[in-house]
This record gives sequence, structure tokens and C-alpha cells, in this order.
Amino acid sequence: MKSHTHYLWFNTKRRQEIIDITDEVAKQVEVSEVREGMVLVSAMHISASVFVNDHESGLWEDILKWLEGTIAPWDPPRYRHNETGEDNAAAHLRSLTIGHEVIVPITAGKWDGQRKKRVIIKVLGE
Amino acid sequence: MKSHTHYLWFNTKRRQEIIDITDEVAKQVEVSEVREGMVLVSAMHISASVFVNDHESGLWEDILKWLEGTIAPWDPPRYRHNETGEDNAAAHLRSLTIGHEVIVPITAGKWDGQRKKRVIIKVLGE
Amino acid sequence: MKSHTHYLWFNTKRRQEIIDITDEVAKQVEVSEVREGMVLVSAMHISASVFVNDHESGLWEDILKWLEGTIAPWDPPRYRHNETGEDNAAAHLRSLTIGHEVIVPITAGKWDGQRKKRVIIKVLGE
Repeated sequence: MKSHTHYLWFNTKRRQEIIDITDEVAKQVEVSEVREGMVLVSAMHISASVFVNDHESGLWEDILKWLEGTIAPWDPPRYRHNETGEDNAAAHLRSLTIGHEVIVPITAGKWDGQRKKRVIIKVLGE
Repeated sequence: MKSHTHYLWFNTKRRQEIIDITDEVAKQVEVSEVREGMVLVSAMHISASVFVNDHESGLWEDILKWLEGTIAPWDPPRYRHNETGEDNAAAHLRSLTIGHEVIVPITAGKWDGQRKKRVIIKVLGE
Repeated sequence: MKSHTHYLWFNTKRRQEIIDITDEVAKQVEVSEVREGMVLVSAMHISASVFVNDHESGLWEDILKWLEGTIAPWDPPRYRHNETGEDNAAAHLRSLTIGHEVIVPITAGKWDGQRKKRVIIKVLGE
């Protein structure tokens, strides 16, 4: 079995923002030389999320607005977590909603997600 | 390591519907001849979700109603994504909530989920 | 490839509660002797969730309150699933939101999550 691990760092400027890391992931899949397998992309902070979605600026605005308006308003005083001195309880709840990691299939050396299929079932093991 | 990949297509009739693919997944696990491993079931469209839950018609109605009433109403004009000509921003937000993929343990050649245990911890690697 | 499977049981006292299983998972990673790989931690009940987050009592209260107040109130009569005699439709919807399982990278024999990095990309396969 092949295994390849790579870490990403970011300098984020705002309290909440979306960063497209698709190219980084695709590059690491290539570097790994894995032909059949999976790539796990996981946030190392529990107030962050990793997700698969369109790179479309209107949708990104929709997502940020929806997180604030529907899922969990930032508003620190509404949360007990605030009493610890941290003001990011909403970021934790948003991360619980969107998810902490994604796992993407690799088939024939490529991230297997761009084609016109509905669902992929990929079994790995012995 | 064994690897087996299979794609599913669907003809969906409504804007939003739930399809049970359990039998398809179980079949592909069998075809793969994997005894110890994992099966990844991942949507290829980012306006779709894959989830594990009961096959119970009342609950399915509850889920669809909840997605519309609580998570994200369809209502295209409320979303910026609508300006691109697409009307499915709500489907994107619903998919972010429910999740894009699931990964299920395989133990002794079977989808390891039907038994009366609370949590399974499965480690794979070298 | 190495594979190691372990099951956890719990005696839960309340309708909804949070249990920290980090030590159990870390122990099983050690027992597995896997140096490079992934650990899947998956709920065997579809009314339960597995998630990665802080062990902080204020935040735990915030999460439980948020699930009841924002995501899905318990209130059985509001759900069709209730007609089957089960009263836990809300638990299903909450589990759909938070997620049914997590998958965590293992690097150099340890759960790779405590360090000051933002995102890990881990590729496994052949």
C-alpha cells in the first residue's frame, strides 16, 4: 500500500472564509502515484470545515450567509462556550454541520469526481 | 490491497428524492471480495447527498420536509447562485448539511452495520 | 495492509448525550500497530453521531441546545416517523446533520490531529 501525507497552511484574513484547495489536492494525488485509492482531506482545527462544492462566487456568498442566518449566528453571548474566553462557538456548530473532512475516490490516478455519473461505490481492503 | 470501483446512474423524476442503494452497495462489496476494508459511497454531483439511515417512508417524508422547512428553502430568488442561471442553491446547502459521501466498514466480507453495537473503530493501513 | 476492528458499547442515561471516546480510539490505533493509514469511527445506530470537536462542557451544552433549538426539536408529533411508534425522528435528523462517522488520519503511528496545521491531505492506495 502506498501512503502520502501533505499539510497545508493558510493565512486567513477574515473570521470566516472559503478557500479552494482543489489544485493542491489534485497535485498531492499525483505526487502520491496512487492509482486506486482514496484521498482524505481533513481540517486540523475543529472550527474549520472541508467540503466539496462548486467554485462559484454567488454560491460562496450564499453559503456564508446561510451559515450565519440559518445554521448558527456568530453572536458569542448566546453560547456557553463563550464563558471560556473563546468567541467561536458558532464556528464549531457550523463545522459540525458542514463536516470536518472529506474523502474522495481516486481511480486511474485521478480524483474521480468530474464525470457525469451519479454515485461511485469504491471498495478498498483485503 | 484489493480495489473495486462501480458507478451508479439514476433517472430521478422529482427535484428532490430519496433512493435506497443499500442492495447495490452490498452487492459491490461482495463482488470486490474484500474481507476487511471500507466502502466509500460518494455522490458525483454536489447537489446530491449520500447518507445512512432507516428505510421508512414516514421518516423519508420528514427528511424532505425538514430540508425544505429548516435547512434551506428551495426559493431561488433568495440565493446569489441563482444569478448564474442555476436554481439549485438550496440543493447545494442541503448537500453540505447531510454530506456528500459515506464510508462504511467492511468486516468479514460484510457491510458491518446491522449489529447491536454502538460504535465501530476500524483502523486500516500499514 | 493491516486491519484492526474494535467495537464500543455504552450505557447512555439520557435521550441525548455526548461521550468522549478519544482515548478509546487512540488506544485502538496503538493496538493496530498501523503507522500510516486511517481510522474510521462509525456509529452503528442511525440515531447516533460521531464527531470531532473540543471537550469543553460549555460547548457541549451549546451543541445539545442547538440541536434542539435550531436543527430539529424533539417534539414527536411533528414527524411522520412518529406514526411507526418510534419517537426519535429528531435524533435521525440531528444525525444527518452532524454525521454518522468520522475518518481520521494516522501518521507515524498517531492520530494526526493535534498539531498547528490547517489541513491534512492523506492519500492511501496502490
